[in-house]
Amino acid sequence: MSANPVEHAFDVSVYMTELGVRAREASAGMAMASSQAKDDALRSIADLLEQGADELKAENRKDLEVGRRNGLDAALLDRLELNDGRIGSMAEGLRQIAALPDPVGEISEMKYRPSGIQVGRMRVPLGVIGIIYESRPNVTADAAGLCLKSGNATIMRGGSEAIHSNRAIARSLRTGLAGAGLPAEAVQVVETTDRAAVGEMLRMKSAIDVIIPRGGKGLISRVSDESLIPVVKHLDGICHVYIDDSADPRMAEAIAFNAKTHRYGVCNAMETLLVAQGVAARILPRLGERYREAGVELRGCPRTCEILAGIREAEEEDWRAEYLAPVLAIRVVDGPDEAIAHINTYGSHHTDSIVTGDYARARRFLREVDSSSVMVNASTRFADGFEYGLGAEIGISTDKLHARGPVGLEGLTTRKFIVLGDGNIRT
Amino acid sequence: MSANPVEHAFDVSVYMTELGVRAREASAGMAMASSQAKDDALRSIADLLEQGADELKAENRKDLEVGRRNGLDAALLDRLELNDGRIGSMAEGLRQIAALPDPVGEISEMKYRPSGIQVGRMRVPLGVIGIIYESRPNVTADAAGLCLKSGNATIMRGGSEAIHSNRAIARSLRTGLAGAGLPAEAVQVVETTDRAAVGEMLRMKSAIDVIIPRGGKGLISRVSDESLIPVVKHLDGICHVYIDDSADPRMAEAIAFNAKTHRYGVCNAMETLLVAQGVAARILPRLGERYREAGVELRGCPRTCEILAGIREAEEEDWRAEYLAPVLAIRVVDGPDEAIAHINTYGSHHTDSIVTGDYARARRFLREVDSSSVMVNASTRFADGFEYGLGAEIGISTDKLHARGPVGLEGLTTRKFIVLGDGNIRT
Repeated sequence: MSANPVEHAFDVSVYMTELGVRAREASAGMAMASSQAKDDALRSIADLLEQGADELKAENRKDLEVGRRNGLDAALLDRLELNDGRIGSMAEGLRQIAALPDPVGEISEMKYRPSGIQVGRMRVPLGVIGIIYESRPNVTADAAGLCLKSGNATIMRGGSEAIHSNRAIARSLRTGLAGAGLPAEAVQVVETTDRAAVGEMLRMKSAIDVIIPRGGKGLISRVSDESLIPVVKHLDGICHVYIDDSADPRMAEAIAFNAKTHRYGVCNAMETLLVAQGVAARILPRLGERYREAGVELRGCPRTCEILAGIREAEEEDWRAEYLAPVLAIRVVDGPDEAIAHINTYGSHHTDSIVTGDYARARRFLREVDSSSVMVNASTRFADGFEYGLGAEIGISTDKLHARGPVGLEGLTTRKFIVLGDGNIRT
Repeated sequence: MSANPVEHAFDVSVYMTELGVRAREASAGMAMASSQAKDDALRSIADLLEQGADELKAENRKDLEVGRRNGLDAALLDRLELNDGRIGSMAEGLRQIAALPDPVGEISEMKYRPSGIQVGRMRVPLGVIGIIYESRPNVTADAAGLCLKSGNATIMRGGSEAIHSNRAIARSLRTGLAGAGLPAEAVQVVETTDRAAVGEMLRMKSAIDVIIPRGGKGLISRVSDESLIPVVKHLDGICHVYIDDSADPRMAEAIAFNAKTHRYGVCNAMETLLVAQGVAARILPRLGERYREAGVELRGCPRTCEILAGIREAEEEDWRAEYLAPVLAIRVVDGPDEAIAHINTYGSHHTDSIVTGDYARARRFLREVDSSSVMVNASTRFADGFEYGLGAEIGISTDKLHARGPVGLEGLTTRKFIVLGDGNIRT
């Protein structure tokens, strides 16, 4: 590295610019890489991570010690820790990415036009992806792996608390790339812990094509507010299940229970349950009992509180809350109109599901709910790149430009037009 | 309008914010609009423009008078002018948009997953499109028509020199929308000529989903540099034709001549011709003669100048020039390697074409040239939404995020995920 972060007169702007230039140059080589070379690199990185597990754990221990000294809480320290199981999972993840079909070069929609030319699209990499993430060091391998497979270069800025772990993982990434004849510079890890590096990254329009932040809401808000480069992100997962009065009650109960209790701390967990007036008195008592047994705290609208006596009354802010915890807001609504209006007003455009037996209402919900995943008769917990068949997921977008919903390899690419002719000219 | 631009204490920031709120509200109604209502609105706007041609021409004369007083040159005044022919073309354009298939609600790729859910995509509008454009008032109708058809609301900021014309066209747009039962507020025209309005627009992240600038390079650079909102744009059209040594000479000559001389002032005209060393001496003399006859000034690399005696030697800046004029830079290259490297270095990622009889070189050129349109044996002049079968074109993007190449109705939409289940839960 030509800029040494520990040097006295370290200039973060110069350092980041150099890093950007190297990534941009390497991106051209990555775009041309054969499927074989990319898959070889991914499998070789997986092997290197496993073979170097002891060294990696030693580097990780440095991060853990600094973290303990700095008073990181137990949850953060747990996220930071790399053990053999987690290193094995990283390696396995990379091997799974290697086994996915290569999206790059895929040609589609080739059609003849009246002029005689044949026009279609070819899928190509985006170029350079900027990943800004927090403490989990496994993101370094996962995200770089997806970018590598999709023919992109990356600039990765992980949390300073994971710097030793991230550097060690990056060495494997670069060794694996070089071993497969690909540019090692295609993975650039920001090795300075200077916080100004993030600000620099977010202004590097000519070096970075898209920014993907991974982490807590604070990080994502900051990135999204400051970035001059397009950001693929979601801030909240305020997901809803709406139980229509035509719903099969057992199905409704199963989906509403699963969407809340399968996992609490995930963005596709249900946070608000909407129930049609006509079935609330029939469905809520039994469902409420199951939530209570599972230890879920309920907060209801006045109509809900009439049915489920003794629960806390929901405040306005409950409808906007992403609890990520065993807490659920419940609202009784008149029907699909009010349910859709509630979701589009209070939701976060992440994932919302209707449980219904009514064809027209299912169709309407799918069209009118303005979310990145809209479901009929399925648990919101399915909103996930792997469950959707994308093979893997680098994030979920609740925005509309470029990607909406879980983002897999396809979201890390774009399509150019290609034209095949036989000497055609315009007249 | 609640904010009157001519009021004494006019606050452009408040005015733009209000406009943004109205557009955002209207966008929800537009997203739900039926195909029938949208097509009715488009045809009714076309009728209104034709029926109101006299009034429109009267408003346009005000702009022309102010323009003359302010010393606009003849070319600008010509672009500004609306006559019966141009009004008829605007109306015809809207009727053609009405006749296109509705992209909104299109469902694709529905596939069953091992969990039993069926997952696919539904095409939905982007939301609110910000259009910033220069003197041609017809853009008001064309761009608003495409946004309307794709279910989007628009905020339109035209050049101050066309303000009377743009207001008059906007009245027809809003009347046509309302007549079809759609929200008139879906078209917001920035009625102040305060230049700060553009700056405000470029920061309205919560009100506008994407900015599309239409006009000269100065405008597009400014928009692209300042915008906090993603921009769909191209700056330059430095297009190349590469004549490979395996090319059919007559085909090569026809394409190279057409790409340069069919129209000079357009972004998909060829600006640099690359010729393989092996055929340069055979092809250039005859082609040079044809260019000379057509009045095209040639500027060549040293090898070109040896073949075409008496032409001016090209400077480094000629390889980066978008002449938009009867001027052509010519470079003799060793073969496809040097041609591809030249295009990726000096080009603008717009449109580049190879003329070749060689299968492997055609395949390589398609993959390795990093442009939004890459062609084999066809004139660069085909790079156009209409020629590609998109039905119409709101612009061309040389960027990679969201859209690359000509942008039609599809580029004004995105796809959300939809999931159809039978009571599926995650286990």
